[in-house]
Amino acid sequence: MRSFLALTSSTAIALLVAFYTIGPTSAQNSERSIPARMIPAPAAASAELRESIMGSPDPDIAGNNAFGPTTDQEWKAFVTQSDGAASQAVDAMAQAFGVTFAHHVVDGVNIYQVSPNEVNPDHEEHRFLFVHGGAYVIGGGEAGLLEAFLIASRAKIRVISIDYRMPPDHPFPAAVDDVITIYRHVLQNRPAKAIALGGTSAGGGLTLASIHRIHELGLETPGAIYAGTPWADLTKASDSLHTNQGLDRILVSSDGLLKSAAALYAGGEELTHHLISPVYGDFNDFPPTYLVTGTRDMLLSDTVRVHRKLRANGNIADLNVYEGFSHADYLLAPTSPESQEVYAELDKFLLTHLD
Amino acid sequence: MRSFLALTSSTAIALLVAFYTIGPTSAQNSERSIPARMIPAPAAASAELRESIMGSPDPDIAGNNAFGPTTDQEWKAFVTQSDGAASQAVDAMAQAFGVTFAHHVVDGVNIYQVSPNEVNPDHEEHRFLFVHGGAYVIGGGEAGLLEAFLIASRAKIRVISIDYRMPPDHPFPAAVDDVITIYRHVLQNRPAKAIALGGTSAGGGLTLASIHRIHELGLETPGAIYAGTPWADLTKASDSLHTNQGLDRILVSSDGLLKSAAALYAGGEELTHHLISPVYGDFNDFPPTYLVTGTRDMLLSDTVRVHRKLRANGNIADLNVYEGFSHADYLLAPTSPESQEVYAELDKFLLTHLD
Repeated sequence: MRSFLALTSSTAIALLVAFYTIGPTSAQNSERSIPARMIPAPAAASAELRESIMGSPDPDIAGNNAFGPTTDQEWKAFVTQSDGAASQAVDAMAQAFGVTFAHHVVDGVNIYQVSPNEVNPDHEEHRFLFVHGGAYVIGGGEAGLLEAFLIASRAKIRVISIDYRMPPDHPFPAAVDDVITIYRHVLQNRPAKAIALGGTSAGGGLTLASIHRIHELGLETPGAIYAGTPWADLTKASDSLHTNQGLDRILVSSDGLLKSAAALYAGGEELTHHLISPVYGDFNDFPPTYLVTGTRDMLLSDTVRVHRKLRANGNIADLNVYEGFSHADYLLAPTSPESQEVYAELDKFLLTHLD
Repeated sequence: MRSFLALTSSTAIALLVAFYTIGPTSAQNSERSIPARMIPAPAAASAELRESIMGSPDPDIAGNNAFGPTTDQEWKAFVTQSDGAASQAVDAMAQAFGVTFAHHVVDGVNIYQVSPNEVNPDHEEHRFLFVHGGAYVIGGGEAGLLEAFLIASRAKIRVISIDYRMPPDHPFPAAVDDVITIYRHVLQNRPAKAIALGGTSAGGGLTLASIHRIHELGLETPGAIYAGTPWADLTKASDSLHTNQGLDRILVSSDGLLKSAAALYAGGEELTHHLISPVYGDFNDFPPTYLVTGTRDMLLSDTVRVHRKLRANGNIADLNVYEGFSHADYLLAPTSPESQEVYAELDKFLLTHLD
């Protein structure tokens, strides 16, 4: 048994007393040393999510951090490979989810209209503008439709998936501009409060950035937004990039794709620009916002920092954190009860806040 | 640069495609190996919280896990030492927070009435029943008053702090019984919807367990409850007990005090009993619940699991996760902007939901 003095230093109560009696300790540890560990699969997650997690390989942090195309040609080869693989299954997935989709070009921007086989009558006049994830480099074309299908299918709502332009050919602000173009187009035919905007990861960040831009342009804001584990800070300021490194089975680490893609997307602009890292913007007068993340998500901090900014500015903001979820695990384990719950709650949120 | 095949396996999109094209990988890794790391202080936390975190020593996981009194005498010596230290500063703290307090015995239960120097007229008829933390062993007597002072001072509301009985002399269900005794007493003089119940850590868990008990007794539920990083699962099922081990500067690890205190409190009952680990109870018809935790909190999972159960049963439940917070860091860094925000939001929640 350790000495009582050492013991009590590990309790909040005794430490609070210490704070008031001797004042804060002088800063000394700018870093904490955390030993190597074995982490069991999350016992309280659903059996399906747990099995999916157990099927993931051990993290290769060094290998992941070594990734980063350096030329436009390397980036394009990566995108072709990744999106090509993702597109292969799109028809099968549309059938599995009970949706149909069609490509259009609207005011110069590529979109996909995604229609569920059955529309909820309460969503008849609503439109969900969807912006895909993929670190602002992948997920283009049909490869970006996966979550659009999930939303259309589970909320029984019509989705317009915006196939925004991306680097290396089209860095920031092309993506934001394309979202605004389509938003303006949809606004011609229906009230702003009948429109939702949202997506996951880069799509969540782009959603938040687009609201900043909508404010700057003096447009009316959408009725509700969805920021699924949003990439809201492209600098490396978020705590969970460090604390959940290696625990997050999808992102794994932050010095590889995330870091390279951030620089590619910014195209010379500062990463702290509020339309690139929207957490640094003004969160006054935001639409009601539905946020999702997980205990193992490397963007847990991005998500909760946005939540706090929204709340500090008096907005409606609904934070949902799932046990054992890595980044966007509701997409990686889409048939898990947790993923079903994510979209059931999104639907409830839309029905509450869209007019 | 790694091969494209390896690269795409780290993206959600490609993995989702893999899910649909080849089905889930067969389970293999029941544990993940996470290498040792250096974790910087959270850059996006306030300067005050960051300085407080940097003042904490490196985690001594093995030393922390070695803690565990084995006899009643050892427990009592630990409690005397810990609570004695905490009580020393109570008068100075009452003055600093602008509150007065008085001890009473009501229906055999010790309580402290805590009155702010100024009461918000909107809270004139409200009462906050407070249950302290301390792993069901420490925080008794005046040592449990610290958060009661913060709530009374910041929400300008009258607080009744319940000095519930604790082990080794009084294991479960004494604590729950004492909360019910005082709740019944307060109900004699004011409507249930004018009463809030809440606390942090063991106090948060006890709050949730008390609602289960209130349901069993057929009493009307309080108007609102506060579950600050609640110890809602005394088994070791929560993911963050593993993922945030060593990152949480307050709890540090789970096989020391937490494990020993859980066994002592349960006194032979199963740890999964719904009045001991309330996450296993029925969350139907709960009062509006305000929840607080942090990205480094070892009870992050306890908190989010309760949030999900509340939401799945259709309750109003407001989850707030703070960047860089260890367990109950709003008590350890009580003058930080984050701690101010925790109680400002609690106050807003009470004003919204209490009648």
